[in-house]
Amino acid sequence: MEKTDDFVKQITKKSEDFSRWYTDVIKRAKLADYAPIKGVMVIRPYGYEIWELIRDQLDRMFKDTGHQNAYFPLLIPESLLKKEAEHVEGFAPEVAWVTMGGSEPLEERLAIRPTSEAIICSMYAKWIKSWRDLPLKINQWTNIVRWEKVTRPFLRTTEFLWQEGHTAHASCKEAEEETLSILEIYKTFIEKYLAIPVITGLKSDSEKFAGALKTYCVETLMPDGKSLQAGTSHHLGQNFSKAFGIRFENKNQELEYAWQTSWGVTTRLIGALVMVHGDDSGLILPPEISPVQTVIVPISRGDWKETILPQAENIYHELKQNNIRVILDDRDTYTPGWKFSEWEVKGVPVRLELGPKDLEKKQVVLVNRINRDKKFVPVENLVETLKKLLADIQSELLSRARAFNASQTHIARTESEIIDIIETRRGLVKTAWCGSPQCEIPIKEKASATIRAILDQPDSQFEKCAICGKAPRHTVIFAKSY
Amino acid sequence: MEKTDDFVKQITKKSEDFSRWYTDVIKRAKLADYAPIKGVMVIRPYGYEIWELIRDQLDRMFKDTGHQNAYFPLLIPESLLKKEAEHVEGFAPEVAWVTMGGSEPLEERLAIRPTSEAIICSMYAKWIKSWRDLPLKINQWTNIVRWEKVTRPFLRTTEFLWQEGHTAHASCKEAEEETLSILEIYKTFIEKYLAIPVITGLKSDSEKFAGALKTYCVETLMPDGKSLQAGTSHHLGQNFSKAFGIRFENKNQELEYAWQTSWGVTTRLIGALVMVHGDDSGLILPPEISPVQTVIVPISRGDWKETILPQAENIYHELKQNNIRVILDDRDTYTPGWKFSEWEVKGVPVRLELGPKDLEKKQVVLVNRINRDKKFVPVENLVETLKKLLADIQSELLSRARAFNASQTHIARTESEIIDIIETRRGLVKTAWCGSPQCEIPIKEKASATIRAILDQPDSQFEKCAICGKAPRHTVIFAKSY
Repeated sequence: MEKTDDFVKQITKKSEDFSRWYTDVIKRAKLADYAPIKGVMVIRPYGYEIWELIRDQLDRMFKDTGHQNAYFPLLIPESLLKKEAEHVEGFAPEVAWVTMGGSEPLEERLAIRPTSEAIICSMYAKWIKSWRDLPLKINQWTNIVRWEKVTRPFLRTTEFLWQEGHTAHASCKEAEEETLSILEIYKTFIEKYLAIPVITGLKSDSEKFAGALKTYCVETLMPDGKSLQAGTSHHLGQNFSKAFGIRFENKNQELEYAWQTSWGVTTRLIGALVMVHGDDSGLILPPEISPVQTVIVPISRGDWKETILPQAENIYHELKQNNIRVILDDRDTYTPGWKFSEWEVKGVPVRLELGPKDLEKKQVVLVNRINRDKKFVPVENLVETLKKLLADIQSELLSRARAFNASQTHIARTESEIIDIIETRRGLVKTAWCGSPQCEIPIKEKASATIRAILDQPDSQFEKCAICGKAPRHTVIFAKSY
Repeated sequence: MEKTDDFVKQITKKSEDFSRWYTDVIKRAKLADYAPIKGVMVIRPYGYEIWELIRDQLDRMFKDTGHQNAYFPLLIPESLLKKEAEHVEGFAPEVAWVTMGGSEPLEERLAIRPTSEAIICSMYAKWIKSWRDLPLKINQWTNIVRWEKVTRPFLRTTEFLWQEGHTAHASCKEAEEETLSILEIYKTFIEKYLAIPVITGLKSDSEKFAGALKTYCVETLMPDGKSLQAGTSHHLGQNFSKAFGIRFENKNQELEYAWQTSWGVTTRLIGALVMVHGDDSGLILPPEISPVQTVIVPISRGDWKETILPQAENIYHELKQNNIRVILDDRDTYTPGWKFSEWEVKGVPVRLELGPKDLEKKQVVLVNRINRDKKFVPVENLVETLKKLLADIQSELLSRARAFNASQTHIARTESEIIDIIETRRGLVKTAWCGSPQCEIPIKEKASATIRAILDQPDSQFEKCAICGKAPRHTVIFAKSY
């Protein structure tokens, strides 16, 4: 993780150095800070509030669809991790190992969970006996450790927070339905709350989860033209149930192996929020997920504490009662100008200013964080006006990101077209693919791009695989990725 | 951790074998299960729902008093842990050490946090520069690992969940006020929501937190006469700020070390809930913290699906709309009798039965989990009647526990009286103490009891220290402890 100054005074321009801009914004907005361990970050209160909003909303969606939360252990014995062969092969290089307890060496070393299939399956094997025990739909919100070489705050860190769902079903069909219904929850959540448009699709074998039958993903396009995997939903088939002995007696009293899924999203979503919406002045947070939807800044001149402040307080209470997440910044140690830029860095979607003239005219000033557009609006019906403005900002952020995605999605019909676009224009390249892993290799080797998603809609405009020229089986998206 | 059968059919009687009863109830009510690692448990969905209710309520109380949540790393470099001498001495024997990342040995081994003072203080030293940055009041909800030799589900496990608050202040007085205000939050929460009476007080030096100036605690009496430490609030003084260099410029532009506190409660609270309220039939959960406050069991005879079920559904929706946590158990794979005992094991405070006669009479049956008292009540005003019953159960559980505590609190004036009471009657022994660590030793050696709390009220009935006979400085509670 590249270290920057403790206090970033000036934010690098987004157009000048995107990567530097990103870390500047995270530091200046106090979303996160570097911990004194390589590749690890501290999530500061403002960043954590965003995570709480993400968690609470997704948690509601999971519970509404019959999932329950639980808590499984952090440490996984090596022998358990090894039970599913592909799984351990995929994760072993990234595992942090506990080898000592107090002053005594352990008989068997313990992995800090890089994901929890192994430990959860060992419990499911105990709990699942009959068709009556199915489906079993459990989720947990927790921390994960993966020993990463190259790290960036929120996007890839040695430790991160996530949710991981693990379900068991009586049939392949039910497991497939679960996998897809979670994918739909992720898509809905990311578009509706984070205002980030997504592409959903399958991963090719080279990118799928270690041990899964199929991996579905939600991919999101970042402003530097790279694709970010924002969430995955895996159909595990019976791979783990066979390795861990998860069997149930079906209605005909026969023993069958359960069908499983697993799925997760991480604190990486916060990184996506920063990148997609932010500008040269800092964060821009979609109102639905912003810890502060409106900040009230009273213009502190003269006898403002007797005149303006009481009215600001009235407005504060009214907005709060109407479930608007609002802060009244009444600190007298800072000037209004300082506060304006501070809350802009933090991406608060609407600033409400109140000065002596506004008081006279029974109005307030609403400033839109996206374009700094100022509106003088009457105090009467303020809640309604403000809610409308917040909704407008939410939908403006999504349509702006949608327009960007459309402008950065390119069609290619040959290998050289794919490579040329990736190298000169970046973005998403839509093309046709025969389905052979061989045809992914040249693009990876020559342009460091991979298939990000196999789309479920075939596209009749393609007549052959862009690489080998054989009959196309899928429309796919190639891109560089995080 | 003692292993019991996967499926406990019969719960051991509480009076017969308290320890066995405890683990039976935890297994049968599906609160937790043993993980395939020594001393580690899985918190199952029903247990985790209780933890979510505890967390949400405490979290509101912390936020209402100006605390923010954040997330600090799981892994702490050994050199950081060593900075505060007493601290590392206290925790080193319990630390799980990470020594390998992937296939490479680490240059410095990393502790899995046994508590987070060290990592948090290293960040506070960066963040705190001026009096304007104070107070800093941060909390986190997270997992902790302590390599314990003897473990029991919820009470002492190698991994557990907790919240840990860490604050920094400009003066000793402010830090002391914070320490006490958190102690008050713990007391209020445990008595009001968990219906468990507490004793609050200071710890003697031999029991205080490693590195603290003072440790305040909430102690709760269990039915076996042992005291359970349910939460602690530490005034850290300047011990950590000096070790980690947490300094701020005060209003006179002088550099000062910050004054700190830390405080926490854990999933152990769930163990206390089980022990204090449960009976031979299983759990009894106080309504305020029960995931299910009322279970509706329709009497499934004849054409119940056409007659009784629709009315049960109406009632279900009405209760739900009135914010009662309710479940309608309409499974047709189980008999009403089976359901009755299942929900009794799970401690649901009120069971609502609805049969053909009740339908006729426009009534329902409410069964109180404490005493199985049955009430036939009209469907009209059901919400009101039920809320009243839930409130009664909540207060009955607290007063029952209060009466038990009073009956188990004994006065002693001499060493032999203390030892005799501890050995023959258990419970809490109230006595006077001169303040010398020497006078704690004989009680510990001869009766395995320690000072659980130094009370803030002196007690004029004691004329001398029970052990040495010198002038008493404090009234204290001696007891065996978990």
